[in-house]
Amino acid sequence: MALRVGIIGGGQLARMMIAPAVELGVDVRVLAEEPGMSAALAATATGDYRDADTVLAFARDVDVVTFDHEHVPQDVLAALVDAGVSVHPGPEPLGVAQDKLVMRRRMQELGAPQPEWAAVSDETQLQAFLDAHGGRAVVKTPRGGYDGKGVRVVSAAHEVQDWFTTLAEDARGGELLVEELVDFSRELAQQVARRPSGHVAVYPVVETVQRGGVCAEVLAPAPGASARLRQAAADLGVAIAEGLGVTGMLAVELFETTDERILVNELAMRPHNSGHWTQDGAVTSQFEQHLRAVLDLPLGSTEATAPWSVMVNLLGGPQEGGLLERFAPAMAEHPRAKVHTYGKAPRPGRKVGHVNVAGDDLDDVAYEARAAAAYFLD
Amino acid sequence: MALRVGIIGGGQLARMMIAPAVELGVDVRVLAEEPGMSAALAATATGDYRDADTVLAFARDVDVVTFDHEHVPQDVLAALVDAGVSVHPGPEPLGVAQDKLVMRRRMQELGAPQPEWAAVSDETQLQAFLDAHGGRAVVKTPRGGYDGKGVRVVSAAHEVQDWFTTLAEDARGGELLVEELVDFSRELAQQVARRPSGHVAVYPVVETVQRGGVCAEVLAPAPGASARLRQAAADLGVAIAEGLGVTGMLAVELFETTDERILVNELAMRPHNSGHWTQDGAVTSQFEQHLRAVLDLPLGSTEATAPWSVMVNLLGGPQEGGLLERFAPAMAEHPRAKVHTYGKAPRPGRKVGHVNVAGDDLDDVAYEARAAAAYFLD
Repeated sequence: MALRVGIIGGGQLARMMIAPAVELGVDVRVLAEEPGMSAALAATATGDYRDADTVLAFARDVDVVTFDHEHVPQDVLAALVDAGVSVHPGPEPLGVAQDKLVMRRRMQELGAPQPEWAAVSDETQLQAFLDAHGGRAVVKTPRGGYDGKGVRVVSAAHEVQDWFTTLAEDARGGELLVEELVDFSRELAQQVARRPSGHVAVYPVVETVQRGGVCAEVLAPAPGASARLRQAAADLGVAIAEGLGVTGMLAVELFETTDERILVNELAMRPHNSGHWTQDGAVTSQFEQHLRAVLDLPLGSTEATAPWSVMVNLLGGPQEGGLLERFAPAMAEHPRAKVHTYGKAPRPGRKVGHVNVAGDDLDDVAYEARAAAAYFLD
Repeated sequence: MALRVGIIGGGQLARMMIAPAVELGVDVRVLAEEPGMSAALAATATGDYRDADTVLAFARDVDVVTFDHEHVPQDVLAALVDAGVSVHPGPEPLGVAQDKLVMRRRMQELGAPQPEWAAVSDETQLQAFLDAHGGRAVVKTPRGGYDGKGVRVVSAAHEVQDWFTTLAEDARGGELLVEELVDFSRELAQQVARRPSGHVAVYPVVETVQRGGVCAEVLAPAPGASARLRQAAADLGVAIAEGLGVTGMLAVELFETTDERILVNELAMRPHNSGHWTQDGAVTSQFEQHLRAVLDLPLGSTEATAPWSVMVNLLGGPQEGGLLERFAPAMAEHPRAKVHTYGKAPRPGRKVGHVNVAGDDLDDVAYEARAAAAYFLD
């Protein structure tokens, strides 16, 4: 029995599946967008994931296809399924991750708590939503946004005039998503793994700290979370994974409100930045878990190996030189810090790596993760 | 600054450096003996490590050369050094690991505690040693032995007649090593990492359980070891690393005597089976540590992440089918078990993988590691 997992997309999430795959003895093969990407070591093909022939040819030699990102078009996914390829997550859950309006509708059907929202197709509809929600709201393009792109906080409908213009020019028409501005105390993320045969494994809910719409830090588990909150997040994660038929890793990004409710913000159906701490702080990392889940193998323990873990993203990297030039001072000062880099050139705002620290005292762990990460940023 | 580590040898130790290299962003390149070896994913060249031209060509594109094994001949090592290649560990410490008689002489010079021993060049000399040591002793060929090969317990000199015959036919002549049979209570291993610039990092001393001359299990840390014993082992490891100028990982295999002394059994100058537990039970695995050490980067914390870790080797593998066919039952029963396989075909006695379990209770951890490993062995 060969276990060959084909990953579409050569970014850092594919890269971080390589280490557990090598250890398990699973053969990972990557279809990379271009040469020299983060997951180049395991790249067996280079090509456009939007081209069905390219993807079908890549899928011929693997037992299961999974993803570094959620952008593979539905027609390509359908071609894979028609060809008898095992695809995890499948087209239906991926469709939910690909379109924020579809996601809001499905969450509503599942009875998942979420911010008030509407689909709006012109400025008049948007203005009506604004007027009904205190004059400010978040507008999102349903497709193609990530890391804060395609998201605007507006207080007047004309602030997204350009997006409506683009929609009007699109022959398929379309709508924007508008959501109430949630009065949240912090953001959380709940990760769940689910096998095709149905078994789920639940990670502890974590706190995510965003800066400029991009994840900056993760504290695991979420400090001060009550047993009730932890259970509510876990139950919600499982309900969404089961309700949508997700296979592999699911991340549910959540708002925690000032009255300790949780509301679904976004979904990701793949390993996720909020789970990078598991590489050095949990028995089974999210990357190994994703491989096990998509191969329909029994899931590993999601138990934390230390009371606290903190992950700090390396955003942008140093202005001069590469990340590896900063190894010496960072490692000398912080022998507990686990440095992960993605083989990407530094560029402002770009995620080029992260640092994990695990230990007994949250303040110490957070300090050390931040201090080690600071060596990589000017 | 590129960090390119060239590893000579494509076995499982090279393979297990791939995961930490990918995470750090270090570029590992492997000179494999043949295609399809354990470290094939990172193999950039295939060829004979005894051929200087092959090795020099491989070394041209890397920043440092290190090893999967200690068998690279001294003339090839000398050619590398002459060509200005950074080689870690260097020819001198490797020479000590390559010849058990050289090792015994160097240990004697360093004042390291060791079994009584002698170099014997004929049956008369060997019989004299036997007569002086209760009539039984261990005879070893100085070169080429590993995992119990080239080692015999004898009670009469003629039992190694074939080895003396071989020596007599060798134009270079030579001697066998004979050692007293140590009355040991158990075997231990002390690992130390050392940078070229001199800094050392010391792992906790572990207990190794051998079966048929092959490592079967490792318990970390060594159960019931007194503070005095732990300190003595650590001091000895550091003294040997410094005394021999070892760079990278050093494993000192030790006998613990019934009166709680420790005696040097063997040395290994590379990651070692006794340290596989560090992959899932220490802040810095021996494979990451080796990379850091040979690159002269600051060493990582050697702290254990759990009170107890147990490693069980998969020796031989299943009689039918591959290791991966046993994943499902092993993982279903033991979600805490970390399975590592080496991409090698099962064969009686062959090391084809290992299982690590870490946790709070030694009995539970040992039970679970053994039970999970048993699924891979008929």
